[in-house]
Amino acid sequence: MTLTNISNVRDYIKNNGEFVNRILDRYLPPAEQDPSTLHSAMRYSVLAPGKRLRPLLALSSYEYCGGKTEGEDIPIHFAMAALEMVHTYSLIHDDLPCMDDDDLRRGIPTCHKKFGEAEAVLTGDALHDVAFHLMAQTGSTQACMELAEALGTNGMIGGQCADVEAEGRDITKEEVINIHTRKTGALIRCSVRLGAILAQADKDLLERLTVYGEKIGLAFQIIDDILDVEGNSELLGKNVGSDSKKKKATYPGVVGIDQARKDANKLIEDAVACFDKFDNNILKDLAIYIGQRNK
Amino acid sequence: MTLTNISNVRDYIKNNGEFVNRILDRYLPPAEQDPSTLHSAMRYSVLAPGKRLRPLLALSSYEYCGGKTEGEDIPIHFAMAALEMVHTYSLIHDDLPCMDDDDLRRGIPTCHKKFGEAEAVLTGDALHDVAFHLMAQTGSTQACMELAEALGTNGMIGGQCADVEAEGRDITKEEVINIHTRKTGALIRCSVRLGAILAQADKDLLERLTVYGEKIGLAFQIIDDILDVEGNSELLGKNVGSDSKKKKATYPGVVGIDQARKDANKLIEDAVACFDKFDNNILKDLAIYIGQRNK
Repeated sequence: MTLTNISNVRDYIKNNGEFVNRILDRYLPPAEQDPSTLHSAMRYSVLAPGKRLRPLLALSSYEYCGGKTEGEDIPIHFAMAALEMVHTYSLIHDDLPCMDDDDLRRGIPTCHKKFGEAEAVLTGDALHDVAFHLMAQTGSTQACMELAEALGTNGMIGGQCADVEAEGRDITKEEVINIHTRKTGALIRCSVRLGAILAQADKDLLERLTVYGEKIGLAFQIIDDILDVEGNSELLGKNVGSDSKKKKATYPGVVGIDQARKDANKLIEDAVACFDKFDNNILKDLAIYIGQRNK
Repeated sequence: MTLTNISNVRDYIKNNGEFVNRILDRYLPPAEQDPSTLHSAMRYSVLAPGKRLRPLLALSSYEYCGGKTEGEDIPIHFAMAALEMVHTYSLIHDDLPCMDDDDLRRGIPTCHKKFGEAEAVLTGDALHDVAFHLMAQTGSTQACMELAEALGTNGMIGGQCADVEAEGRDITKEEVINIHTRKTGALIRCSVRLGAILAQADKDLLERLTVYGEKIGLAFQIIDDILDVEGNSELLGKNVGSDSKKKKATYPGVVGIDQARKDANKLIEDAVACFDKFDNNILKDLAIYIGQRNK
């Protein structure tokens, strides 16, 4: 499968990624404002270089559903920033010594390494909170609920909990799919859905994009597992080989690396198949991009 | 100052406290549902005996403003449960070894003592999240924003951060008031305001109740500090003397215990003065109750 237009998707990611950075900068409290350590830590973790995949998925889904992008501080902007902030909050808490105990993230020391453990807990909490403040500014309680569900015990936190509990023991393919679907998949699915919801997509379109979001969400985490085995630490901005060191439940650990690659490709194909063959669009390209990513 | 009717306020606290426990039980995910460790930990911490002060303040403010209490699962019920859940989330994270490192809370081992540190971080996160899911169910994005503001870096988290940073150094009365106003005061103020907002109180009434909320919020924390010196560990359900052990910034530590008691009484008087002399109501009684509490 090839990208319909490789330079097109690269440009989209680059230009809109820069736009995401600008709104994140605008919606984060200034570092010099009290409590400045906390605000500095929030900015340090959120503004570190990232793919901005979740905001980009929300935006492209929103545009695909005909949402209007004119104007500043419109609901989709709030949702995009909220998605990146909750993603960052989850990384900060997952990296804590009592969780995954990671030192490196997005190419820089993790939040607790830089600011200490207490500040890192509070920084994650504060970002979690700012995210809901932003979501409320969309004016849509449905959108707020959507995010809360994706983050909750049926979604991301439930997946992280199952992940911690699965460490060091043998698990089945079904279990690892269940963990990945919740831990990573739920928020990616939610990003796509939020774009559609804020663009007031009809039920059929929302359901089709939900399937797309589920497929790329699982594919994304399988590829994350593969990159932890085969990837380049410098490109990834985090240590590789840490999953096997921690005896983490990984997809290639259960089915082997070749099968993992095949299954990820099949998920990307399924995601692309959510659109008509002749319907060339950014969501389709983003799916293929996810399938081919090396960072 | 005496309670207008002591048995009246005691009955109110008892009956409505039991009602709060019932809705908390209903809105918390069942312990047997996956991820069951996490759900058990959430229930363990939230359902441990507590004063339920924040939900009771929200309810009595709502009733004072003429809000209708008929029906099940009405907006004020969601807000009441959300307030207790965010309060519990903050206690769980504050008790962590990297923060206040407390072993005892509400008469039972703290969440991390019982379930481990990783689970405690996730339990707090999950409660934070459920709270916003409940708030969204009120249908009011204004109410969601109100809670997010009270919890954020200008409110509770900012206060906790300043509290951690002030440990072990000399601080002024103004600084300790600033910490207490944010750390404890913001959520108490918010509880009162949420009741008024959901009852669609007019601007003047909302402002009057906001002043009331600010006064009792600060008084509550000053009395908390006094009880940490003079209180009974068994009644309080937590260890006493821990503030001075940790060289915490406390109000009596700065002005002395007698002046602290006087200042708390003055704040309670000011809170009561937000109502007409002949306007006997539960908010007034709750303020006096807070001033006289020994647990």
